[in-house]
Amino acid sequence: MSTREQALALDAQDPLAPLREQFSLPEGVLYLDGNSLGVLPRATPARVQQVVQDEWGTGLIRSWNSAGWITLPQRVGNKIARLVGAGADELVVADSTSVNLFKVLSAALSITVADAPQRKTIVSERSNFPTDLYIAEALCRERGFELVLSEPDELPTLLNGRTAVLMLTHVNYRTGRMHDMAALTAAAHAAGALTVWDLAHSAGAVPVDLHAANADFAIGCGYKYLNGGPGAPAFVWAHPRHASRFWQPLAGWMGHAAPFEFTPGYRPAEGISRYLCGTPALLSLAALECGVDTVLAAEPHGGMAALRAKSLALTRLFAAKVQADCPALRLVSPTSDVQRGSQVCFAHDEMAYAVVQALIGRGVIGDFRAPDVLRFGFTPLYLRHVDAWDAAEHLRQVLHTGEWREPRFQQRHAVT
Amino acid sequence: MSTREQALALDAQDPLAPLREQFSLPEGVLYLDGNSLGVLPRATPARVQQVVQDEWGTGLIRSWNSAGWITLPQRVGNKIARLVGAGADELVVADSTSVNLFKVLSAALSITVADAPQRKTIVSERSNFPTDLYIAEALCRERGFELVLSEPDELPTLLNGRTAVLMLTHVNYRTGRMHDMAALTAAAHAAGALTVWDLAHSAGAVPVDLHAANADFAIGCGYKYLNGGPGAPAFVWAHPRHASRFWQPLAGWMGHAAPFEFTPGYRPAEGISRYLCGTPALLSLAALECGVDTVLAAEPHGGMAALRAKSLALTRLFAAKVQADCPALRLVSPTSDVQRGSQVCFAHDEMAYAVVQALIGRGVIGDFRAPDVLRFGFTPLYLRHVDAWDAAEHLRQVLHTGEWREPRFQQRHAVT
Repeated sequence: MSTREQALALDAQDPLAPLREQFSLPEGVLYLDGNSLGVLPRATPARVQQVVQDEWGTGLIRSWNSAGWITLPQRVGNKIARLVGAGADELVVADSTSVNLFKVLSAALSITVADAPQRKTIVSERSNFPTDLYIAEALCRERGFELVLSEPDELPTLLNGRTAVLMLTHVNYRTGRMHDMAALTAAAHAAGALTVWDLAHSAGAVPVDLHAANADFAIGCGYKYLNGGPGAPAFVWAHPRHASRFWQPLAGWMGHAAPFEFTPGYRPAEGISRYLCGTPALLSLAALECGVDTVLAAEPHGGMAALRAKSLALTRLFAAKVQADCPALRLVSPTSDVQRGSQVCFAHDEMAYAVVQALIGRGVIGDFRAPDVLRFGFTPLYLRHVDAWDAAEHLRQVLHTGEWREPRFQQRHAVT
Repeated sequence: MSTREQALALDAQDPLAPLREQFSLPEGVLYLDGNSLGVLPRATPARVQQVVQDEWGTGLIRSWNSAGWITLPQRVGNKIARLVGAGADELVVADSTSVNLFKVLSAALSITVADAPQRKTIVSERSNFPTDLYIAEALCRERGFELVLSEPDELPTLLNGRTAVLMLTHVNYRTGRMHDMAALTAAAHAAGALTVWDLAHSAGAVPVDLHAANADFAIGCGYKYLNGGPGAPAFVWAHPRHASRFWQPLAGWMGHAAPFEFTPGYRPAEGISRYLCGTPALLSLAALECGVDTVLAAEPHGGMAALRAKSLALTRLFAAKVQADCPALRLVSPTSDVQRGSQVCFAHDEMAYAVVQALIGRGVIGDFRAPDVLRFGFTPLYLRHVDAWDAAEHLRQVLHTGEWREPRFQQRHAVT
């Protein structure tokens, strides 16, 4: 196990350390929840004010042209594409992750109905993020498909001639376990099924190469590791072999080939732009661009590979110290680097919630995920090795002092 | 026809005149496009900065509880409800207008399938806003329904035992013609059909009473007369008799009865909250609240009825002067007050686009709607009678000088 001095020494040598200067980190906070809501970039407030005051306030409706609002979903999409191995003009920003999942899953089912109507199941992980399962469940009801859920290790055995789609979140939100996207995509394709990947806990956190994995569809979240701000719009990608093949049913005007011709019949845009729907939430979209830029700022320093190396160092350090100091907690994240995303989770049947609250009381912000998980996300853009060490030390103290037993840490909030 | 002096005299007596002080109107601009993008309220920049700097920057993830983010869709929804005759907790802010239309139309079709499966058509207006028709077209394809389009006067004759849903935009985006919501809803109900009303050009513009009209579903836009900012989120309402009856297929976690229990099966929230889907775009949602507040500020001055009276005075004044001065332009908005929304439109086969551009060159901002419409929206919160007079005078001058023939006014933009 490392010492605090060793952690400080690692920070002193860290070539990514200057990237932390891009962020407004509040005093007295150790923030291990960038996988739920990324930190505010320093550039964002001024950019949002520019959009509000100049582009909206002064430019008004003219800003759709003069400020480039109309192409912002594509512009920001092209930036995100560089982080996930998508090609230029293959990815757009739109709507929420849930809504985008509905679009791509609808398209994937339409492809199935056309090419392989005997395939009737969507396979996913039982502990996938619930909104993904809810959207799939609703679509299955509508379209006469069946949702088949399993443990992660059993997934390959469930892929067969009945499988329409393998739908997975690349990095599990509760455990931080990362699937092998290329291997599972190959297994799905070998079984004749399509793949839909949710990159919510991957984009900006771990290297993703959608083309190398030969994935079919992907979606992702703007407000976690992309630092886009609360409820930032999400993104959607379809492999070019699929992008223009079917409409998705959210056939709004922004996905039309010529939205301002105002023709009554829907004619979808070529390519991924048909996955746009209504008018984008511009303030949130502009903030997202600032967040994505903070990740792209790592490109001269080695990009996602360098961020990944640091992330692994942080999660290793934290997990090792907590395991050594807090044997009461059960590590639920993989110890193997290749299977672990950018987070470390522990479980405890009784005290998980209260321990998280006690940590928050100390300014160490992680989160609780029902029913029993303590979750700690590590964003290498703004976290230092010493932060990982200090957070683990706070956790040790909260357990060893019994601080978590204080009544104020038992009280449940609406969002936890 | 009135004179400029008479217009000024009306402004001097206008009890709503102080409401204009709520807005940041750019110098040298006469803005007649609040029906496309409302003007920036003075309160918005500071509020957005508060959300960005304090709630996001400092509060971080804690703000879902401490800043009330988690209930903001309901809080802003309850404010909008007061403007459209909806009850408390019957209306929420979510997603875009297009996405919300998909939700309510899906629900209406589900009700039809359950109660009256022989009904197979959605009836709408041929010149309805295209995104509404696109969404309906896509749903019809998915669900085996047929979209039947007609001219507005023929609508009642098309309602019959085959009709599932009458789907209309209350005020037409091109002509400004306003449907009689109560009469058409009664006709639809008499034929056994449900109604879906798009209030994009109504909310904050004309009095709407969803309960008095006995409407079934409604959606609307946040960035037009509600002054919520570019791409502000939209709203959705279902009559309480329908709200809890069916899921809508965009079954995201924010519409779940207990989103933070993270249970794998979807259990929809009671009432309208099940029409939420993903995480809301918080910056845009916070800006929307400021915009809605500018409309609610009229309540002590007579509310929507007073705003409506002023709007009618403005549109009458403008239409009368343009008709007198510019006989080449064909009025396409109704002359009857009860049939006219808060806009005045003229048509011209050749010069519509260039005339609008020439007006914009003079700082008089209206918009062109393909193929031949010059559209002028009147937001009584911030427009004066003299603005209506001056705008009409600019239009007269653009036509009479031939200024619109200048080549720079012929060049098409992406968004017009």
